[in-house]
Amino acid sequence: MTERTRFVSVTRHPSEQVESDGVAVEEPLEIRVEGRGLVVTMRTPGDDIELVTGFLYSEGVIDSLDDLVAVAKVHNPLDPQDNTVDVRLSPGVSIDEGRFASAQRTLFASSACGVCGKATIEQVIKSVPKLEGCAAIDGDWLLSLPERMRHAQPTFDATGGIHAAALFDIKTGQMEVLREDIGRHNAVDKVLGWRMRQDRVPVDDAILLVSGRAGFEIIQKALIAGVPAVAAIGAPSSMAVQLAEEAGMQLFGFVRERRFNRYC
Amino acid sequence: MTERTRFVSVTRHPSEQVESDGVAVEEPLEIRVEGRGLVVTMRTPGDDIELVTGFLYSEGVIDSLDDLVAVAKVHNPLDPQDNTVDVRLSPGVSIDEGRFASAQRTLFASSACGVCGKATIEQVIKSVPKLEGCAAIDGDWLLSLPERMRHAQPTFDATGGIHAAALFDIKTGQMEVLREDIGRHNAVDKVLGWRMRQDRVPVDDAILLVSGRAGFEIIQKALIAGVPAVAAIGAPSSMAVQLAEEAGMQLFGFVRERRFNRYC
Repeated sequence: MTERTRFVSVTRHPSEQVESDGVAVEEPLEIRVEGRGLVVTMRTPGDDIELVTGFLYSEGVIDSLDDLVAVAKVHNPLDPQDNTVDVRLSPGVSIDEGRFASAQRTLFASSACGVCGKATIEQVIKSVPKLEGCAAIDGDWLLSLPERMRHAQPTFDATGGIHAAALFDIKTGQMEVLREDIGRHNAVDKVLGWRMRQDRVPVDDAILLVSGRAGFEIIQKALIAGVPAVAAIGAPSSMAVQLAEEAGMQLFGFVRERRFNRYC
Repeated sequence: MTERTRFVSVTRHPSEQVESDGVAVEEPLEIRVEGRGLVVTMRTPGDDIELVTGFLYSEGVIDSLDDLVAVAKVHNPLDPQDNTVDVRLSPGVSIDEGRFASAQRTLFASSACGVCGKATIEQVIKSVPKLEGCAAIDGDWLLSLPERMRHAQPTFDATGGIHAAALFDIKTGQMEVLREDIGRHNAVDKVLGWRMRQDRVPVDDAILLVSGRAGFEIIQKALIAGVPAVAAIGAPSSMAVQLAEEAGMQLFGFVRERRFNRYC
């Protein structure tokens, strides 16, 4: 069984009582492509196949389920915790390992102008399909989402500290999927991977809600997946605002306590 | 002048008023070693030399200032935002680029047993100097630190969303240094780099306070720098608790609202 919460002994202050308390599990996951290690990420176990599928999708490696032959756990007697996933790509689909090597966390960092936020944004915009846009988001509905996400977070209930990402259908208002992870980016990859494994991409009919802040990489992942609107409980960064604006994505921040900011 | 806050136009809900609001600046930074690109990280500008120095230190590349010949901005007319830093290492100091390539975010991921949290922790413990330990931390003093950090965060004041890390002298109780960054790991690297540039490492006389959660990588960085105690406003992860326990590091979590948990 996948363990997402582990219980450890803690001393509470000021009571100085020793108690057992839940902490979110963090374990490395190695993503292999055709048997070769591509990247290691620290993640909360569970939904690993979704995580890897979503990672490959949101990093622009695959566009559809057809690009994948298989994504599977590698059973290794030396790795009892099943922390390795191997991916087989369809003929014709390839991966530029160099871009993961030197610029893993800023995939599209432009080599044309050294590194520069503006050029990076221009390059992302050029390489993603144009957003179709979406219906106006109702403010009261948007304000209801954080609480609905919060009530669907079993690992947060047990630990008090784990990120979440969720997709809500813009037309019906329903929550489609929620995933938790110690890493914000992983939680986003898990929900995008869930959609990809249902063969329902691009994700052009949903708003993505993230529990923390919205940085450039979160917006970039959402954009590659065609998500027309992103909402964050926390603050957006300058590059997140710029990228969303250029792409015509709706971006909301500080969605909490009966208020929010709408950017661009 | 370094711009850490940028003002953007926002629409407030429910008032629907359009106002100017500050967001934390996020820009890529390329770290080069001897002219070759090693890694790109998304960071808040300012303190870039400290950031790079701290990164090299907390990733185990350098042990002292003597290992560095120079760390300097590369002035490139094509990069008007000065987002490139080049490092010259002293003769005899070398960098294993492979480990940044495939496992940038989990430096010591063990190849012996695939990837496995337990083996990773054992390998970190083997490769860092033993902690000397430190005096017992006074609970009331510890509870005073988050507020002191919060009052020394100009960019948080302007944006409502940026991480911070600070070092407090365990003997005198004074705050030594505080740095802000959009990335938690960068904020830690900046304060460790500040110490390194003062030629005052290991950091065996201070407690490290971080504004968010404490994951494995934060604890690993602190451990490599010899920090005997780490406190987080948020939750620790399972691997953070395990690593701190094995290393004999004092670890505190949820330091807020007049309470905290002491782990191990």
